[in-house]
Amino acid sequence: MIRRLHRVSQIVNKRFKHHDVRELPEKIRPRYSQNSDTKMYSLDWGFTRPRNVLFIKKPFLPTVRNATIDVMRHVKQTYPDVNMLVEPDVEEELDQTASDLDTFSGSHKDLVNKADMLVTFGGDGTILHAVSLFSQIDEVPPILSFSMGTLGFLLPFNIAEHASALDHALNGSAPLLNRMRLSCTRSNSHTVQRAMNEIHLHRGRAPHLLRLNIYVNDAFVTEAVADGILVSTPTGSTAYSLSAGGSIVHPRVPCILLTPICPRSLSFRPLIFPCTDRIRLTVSEESRGEGAECSVDGQLLGLLKRGESMEVQAAGSNSTDVWCFEHSERDWISGLNELLRFNATFGAPNDP
Amino acid sequence: MIRRLHRVSQIVNKRFKHHDVRELPEKIRPRYSQNSDTKMYSLDWGFTRPRNVLFIKKPFLPTVRNATIDVMRHVKQTYPDVNMLVEPDVEEELDQTASDLDTFSGSHKDLVNKADMLVTFGGDGTILHAVSLFSQIDEVPPILSFSMGTLGFLLPFNIAEHASALDHALNGSAPLLNRMRLSCTRSNSHTVQRAMNEIHLHRGRAPHLLRLNIYVNDAFVTEAVADGILVSTPTGSTAYSLSAGGSIVHPRVPCILLTPICPRSLSFRPLIFPCTDRIRLTVSEESRGEGAECSVDGQLLGLLKRGESMEVQAAGSNSTDVWCFEHSERDWISGLNELLRFNATFGAPNDP
Amino acid sequence: MIRRLHRVSQIVNKRFKHHDVRELPEKIRPRYSQNSDTKMYSLDWGFTRPRNVLFIKKPFLPTVRNATIDVMRHVKQTYPDVNMLVEPDVEEELDQTASDLDTFSGSHKDLVNKADMLVTFGGDGTILHAVSLFSQIDEVPPILSFSMGTLGFLLPFNIAEHASALDHALNGSAPLLNRMRLSCTRSNSHTVQRAMNEIHLHRGRAPHLLRLNIYVNDAFVTEAVADGILVSTPTGSTAYSLSAGGSIVHPRVPCILLTPICPRSLSFRPLIFPCTDRIRLTVSEESRGEGAECSVDGQLLGLLKRGESMEVQAAGSNSTDVWCFEHSERDWISGLNELLRFNATFGAPNDP
Amino acid sequence: MIRRLHRVSQIVNKRFKHHDVRELPEKIRPRYSQNSDTKMYSLDWGFTRPRNVLFIKKPFLPTVRNATIDVMRHVKQTYPDVNMLVEPDVEEELDQTASDLDTFSGSHKDLVNKADMLVTFGGDGTILHAVSLFSQIDEVPPILSFSMGTLGFLLPFNIAEHASALDHALNGSAPLLNRMRLSCTRSNSHTVQRAMNEIHLHRGRAPHLLRLNIYVNDAFVTEAVADGILVSTPTGSTAYSLSAGGSIVHPRVPCILLTPICPRSLSFRPLIFPCTDRIRLTVSEESRGEGAECSVDGQLLGLLKRGESMEVQAAGSNSTDVWCFEHSERDWISGLNELLRFNATFGAPNDP
Ligand SMILES: NC(=O)C1=CN([C@@H]2O[C@H](COP(=O)(O)OP(=O)(O)OC[C@H]3O[C@@H](n4cnc5c(N)ncnc54)[C@H](O)[C@@H]3O)[C@@H](O)[C@H]2O)C=CC1
Ligand SMILES: NC(=O)C1=CN([C@@H]2O[C@H](COP(=O)(O)OP(=O)(O)OC[C@H]3O[C@@H](n4cnc5c(N)ncnc54)[C@H](O)[C@@H]3O)[C@@H](O)[C@H]2O)C=CC1
Ligand SMILES: NC(=O)C1=CN([C@@H]2O[C@H](COP(=O)(O)OP(=O)(O)OC[C@H]3O[C@@H](n4cnc5c(N)ncnc54)[C@H](O)[C@@H]3O)[C@@H](O)[C@H]2O)C=CC1
Ligand SMILES: NC(=O)C1=CN([C@@H]2O[C@H](COP(=O)(O)OP(=O)(O)OC[C@H]3O[C@@H](n4cnc5c(N)ncnc54)[C@H](O)[C@@H]3O)[C@@H](O)[C@H]2O)C=CC1
Repeated sequence: MIRRLHRVSQIVNKRFKHHDVRELPEKIRPRYSQNSDTKMYSLDWGFTRPRNVLFIKKPFLPTVRNATIDVMRHVKQTYPDVNMLVEPDVEEELDQTASDLDTFSGSHKDLVNKADMLVTFGGDGTILHAVSLFSQIDEVPPILSFSMGTLGFLLPFNIAEHASALDHALNGSAPLLNRMRLSCTRSNSHTVQRAMNEIHLHRGRAPHLLRLNIYVNDAFVTEAVADGILVSTPTGSTAYSLSAGGSIVHPRVPCILLTPICPRSLSFRPLIFPCTDRIRLTVSEESRGEGAECSVDGQLLGLLKRGESMEVQAAGSNSTDVWCFEHSERDWISGLNELLRFNATFGAPNDP
Repeated sequence: MIRRLHRVSQIVNKRFKHHDVRELPEKIRPRYSQNSDTKMYSLDWGFTRPRNVLFIKKPFLPTVRNATIDVMRHVKQTYPDVNMLVEPDVEEELDQTASDLDTFSGSHKDLVNKADMLVTFGGDGTILHAVSLFSQIDEVPPILSFSMGTLGFLLPFNIAEHASALDHALNGSAPLLNRMRLSCTRSNSHTVQRAMNEIHLHRGRAPHLLRLNIYVNDAFVTEAVADGILVSTPTGSTAYSLSAGGSIVHPRVPCILLTPICPRSLSFRPLIFPCTDRIRLTVSEESRGEGAECSVDGQLLGLLKRGESMEVQAAGSNSTDVWCFEHSERDWISGLNELLRFNATFGAPNDP
Repeated sequence: MIRRLHRVSQIVNKRFKHHDVRELPEKIRPRYSQNSDTKMYSLDWGFTRPRNVLFIKKPFLPTVRNATIDVMRHVKQTYPDVNMLVEPDVEEELDQTASDLDTFSGSHKDLVNKADMLVTFGGDGTILHAVSLFSQIDEVPPILSFSMGTLGFLLPFNIAEHASALDHALNGSAPLLNRMRLSCTRSNSHTVQRAMNEIHLHRGRAPHLLRLNIYVNDAFVTEAVADGILVSTPTGSTAYSLSAGGSIVHPRVPCILLTPICPRSLSFRPLIFPCTDRIRLTVSEESRGEGAECSVDGQLLGLLKRGESMEVQAAGSNSTDVWCFEHSERDWISGLNELLRFNATFGAPNDP
Repeated sequence: MIRRLHRVSQIVNKRFKHHDVRELPEKIRPRYSQNSDTKMYSLDWGFTRPRNVLFIKKPFLPTVRNATIDVMRHVKQTYPDVNMLVEPDVEEELDQTASDLDTFSGSHKDLVNKADMLVTFGGDGTILHAVSLFSQIDEVPPILSFSMGTLGFLLPFNIAEHASALDHALNGSAPLLNRMRLSCTRSNSHTVQRAMNEIHLHRGRAPHLLRLNIYVNDAFVTEAVADGILVSTPTGSTAYSLSAGGSIVHPRVPCILLTPICPRSLSFRPLIFPCTDRIRLTVSEESRGEGAECSVDGQLLGLLKRGESMEVQAAGSNSTDVWCFEHSERDWISGLNELLRFNATFGAPNDP
């Protein structure tokens, strides 16, 4: 990383465009306060406005690239004091198509250290990627996320409304929804991982059923014989957990979902625990395969062998939450209505 | 019925339009033969073509009324030797809007006795209604069904293609799919009922769980403690049974579905039996309410009291099937693709 | 009721056994305080101990009758200052088998006015019945419930341990779990109903799908086309909602479950909202039948006609909760393990 | 294999016990005929009785080893003309514990060539293993399977009834159930695989959703976005397919099940096709991971890369079926009743 930035700064005609993110002023941490009516939060940037905004985009797709560039040009013109941060590969991508944009880049560690706010362009996966940069860090800067098409639970703003959305976010007048994260420790690792959607154990390639012992607050619940187990946040309730038969849970319900994946026991149904509970999963010594593959938000962490375990609980206080800008407290319900196409009853809906 | 027809024929200026269905020539029964490649059937009307066609429509909706009239005018002009039969209420409905059409009507018994072929206009419910006219009769004339909008498993033809569809049906060049029926006898009744979708027992208004003993070929299977039980045909697999958690079964799979409705036991999953099996359901003496409401294809038959039972089995040979005109053997699969909107994955489908 | 009590008090040789509940001292309301570690509550009876204990039993079964009598005799001997209240039909039942027991009875209104504590003998249905006596009242006295056999989520104490369980309850040394209630108002009624399990709308006997419009905090969510809709508490998550496909929710998760019953739309999955949300269900004008049958905790309230609506929300603060004595905070998890027989994997569990 | 047998035959004091399976007389193929009442089959061994019986056991467990030895000693004594075949590792295992038993062994190819009948000891997995020896061969000898404990759909005989079970099987007086197999060809392989339970494609270790295009008889059905897809036999309906939400299908229903595993689309429900249909699954070019892991009856076959495909259809005529000895045509229904513990209603079953 350092090496590449070095190389880049030697290229004279580009010296105005590429800057080292470490030169930027310190990160600003907003304060959040709750509106007792709507239960939404609002944010206070303090005496200043966010100065370092990290723009994160889904790779490759031209539509996403063009939208990102449009918005960045709009920011450059409208908020000239805002520094625009990008990941190194995005810096390179923009080089070829938008040489008029000044950007700051550096190692992920340095980007994460400086960003006051995040703006994402893409799908849910792009938000997950943005948040995963902070998977070993307590606080995540507030996120403004733009969808290129279909909205969803995680994607409240359409790219077409970028000007007003940015304005409200930068001025602290947009409401925010806070989404809890889970934190996960494994008996065979020293790192703690935080998840926005879920942590899961799975049989992986092994064609045999996994056997996992489940404990809640050290009380034994059951031995699961299944493809795997998901420990999800309410945010993750509309992701993998939903495909596995879980319920759709509003992000403001303080709970942890435990959803089995293809369990042998037909009575092992999805369970929902208070978010103060601690969940421990141990790979049973009787499990036939090598062990369980552990993933966080769709990223493979590694194998948990027979006898090894992992422990999951809420990441902590509000400060570890993911703060997402929204239109209003109804965004989630509109998402429900739109995305689930509830009304599309099977058969002949407009019958006749 | 008779009385009303009488009254009507006295009205002189209408005597050319309303005719008694009993005056019509005898019903023609087509013969069916299977194409070994496509597994579809084709039909042979014998030396003649169908002469008595019963037109059945969903009531009230103007769109349906207009479509029906258009098609009947087309038939009058193109196939002047075809007699157009309608139910008495339709005769009255057409009177006011399409006085140029000559129609034959009479009691349901007489209509059923004469119809060579059925044409329906409306949704799946209209087909069910048409078939229900034959619920105590072995043979159902072949059915051509038109949808006004969304197609479906039961509705292969769009009203826009009525000319070609009618032509193929009347000339015997359209392929047919045969849909099995179930027949149901109850310990407290002498009538046998045939069903195209399903027969079901349900707790009805009683707020308490129903207890039903299930026997297959006289072998005891289990006591179901549930809202109710469905005994479905493959055709019915996309109706109530699907809402209750059943699988979608191709109409050519020779089987009977037994699907519990909201069972207490989480391991009581939908069961599928060979179509040669006989299923008996008995209301348990321990059931708390009055008994079980029995319905056939969405029509309430009456109460089955504690200790009473019903028995369901395939209605019999091919001759009791419901024969539906189709475009080709792929109609059902297109229905799958279109109606289930499989591709509409949840979340951001065209992500980004 | 009054009349019957009257008649009874005239029978001279019974005057020592039957007393009018209105003569009893005023109801005592305990105060509850939370243990921050276990999240369980403990209770403080104040300067005194509960004086008026209402004993509620499942009717008819001899095993239940005998167990009830045993426990009441134990109370009479061990806690002579405790007044034993019973419902009028129980008073009559005991008359014939346990004439040594002094009991207080009266109208349900009067019983409810005086009871400091409830003790139930039977199944979950008996607890539901006990709580339903308070369905129009804000506060429910704490409940000690005895099972005659299988335990469960609602039934922590086995009858065999009645002596110690009673002792802990009367001395305020047993932990309690508080279970939220829902309150329901209907557009066609002036009474408010509180539910411990759920409130539900259902098609009842009508063989046709119900159409219900769902609003959350006045925001339109969707039109449900289904057999019905359940609005459940976490307590109710293991009752009807579970049979309809809902998740199992720990009673300490502050939320409301909205579970469709046999919905036509396959994407209408069970939803879970924060317990601060308000849910309104309206019978659509397009619904084909008469309307929707409304039930509370398995008791039929009446019909909601087309256009009529009901509104459900959390019954309020802690004071409206149902307080249940437990062994420890692990009772619920033991219930999970035991009742769901998670380990009973399908097929050959102890294979071979 | 050959090498090991060689080594073994050199050990003089064992020469009477170990024999080369190739020395045995030719395999006998029974003829099967159907009983029109029970729909079960019976078998005719011709002029002779089975001479070469292959005994297959679950490895390691002492209980299974002892049961196997007991039964083999019984066979040696009661049917001295029956040659007892075992797999090489079993031969070695028996060596140490049952040196009195004469056995024949050899390569799997040779064992398969000679076996007239199979006897299994263990669980469902042992039957699957036995059948998998014939996965590239058209005909499977009839199977008598013994369970050590819990019975099940695949395990009709308890070890305690081995004498009578063996007698009926060897004399051809036990009824048989025929279970269809599927055959699978892959675009990247020349071998054909037959499956008794199912063939499945799965994302394996890749944490991302798989994208598979599904075709039935060359008609496009849908793009599945899911963990994977199962193509199952009715026999397999109680295995993985059940855990994934499929229905339980009687083995005599002639059909193929297509069950998605954790699909994103909530409307992609399990589908059931006639057994004359051909199903093709192609890994979509848009799939994010490397491809799909392909397994047959719980054995990993290998990776199917993007663009590659597999095709599945019924293995063919009756002759490719797996023939299993049963008590009677009710075994399957008893299995239902016993194994699913239908009656174990959730909550307090014997309430109170
Ligand atoms: N069978 C399944 O449903 C599987 C789901 N996943 C989910 O994928 C996530 C990772 O996402 P990608 O890296 O993009 O993987 P991906 O490319 O496999 O796509 C995952 C899909 O899930 C959607 N998604 C992600 N988070 C969501 C949320 N909170 N609510 C609604 N939809 C959501 C995305 O829009 C995308 O359509 C994991 O956290 C896991 O939840 C992962 C594996 C299997
Ligand atoms: N919760 C549910 O899903 C319920 C479903 N039903 C179904 O309704 C049928 C009666 O129909 P209607 O009189 O029109 O009642 P209805 O007005 O209640 O409508 C039933 C719905 O089911 C659809 N339908 C009917 N047969 C179908 C089939 N074979 N495949 C796919 N969709 C089908 C219709 O298009 C309509 O959308 C019954 O045979 C039963 O299967 C009846 C009650 C409840
Ligand atoms: N299909 C179903 O599952 C239906 C369930 N019910 C439930 O029955 C309740 C009324 O109970 P009863 O008057 O005894 O009627 P009931 O005699 O129909 O029995 C209901 C069953 O539900 C169990 N149950 C009740 N509350 C429970 C809870 N919170 N957790 C676990 N199990 C529970 C009881 O033990 C009993 O086995 C309703 O509140 C409703 O939840 C009512 C109708 C249909
Ligand atoms: N999540 C799940 O349910 C999974 C299930 N499987 C199943 O396991 C089978 C392979 O079996 P093993 O090698 O023993 O693997 P295994 O050791 O993973 O055990 C599979 C379990 O499935 C049971 N089983 C196998 N066939 C059955 C049938 N036809 N009906 C009822 N139960 C059945 C066995 O008794 C055993 O309990 C595969 O064919 C597949 O069907 C495989 C992977 C995951």
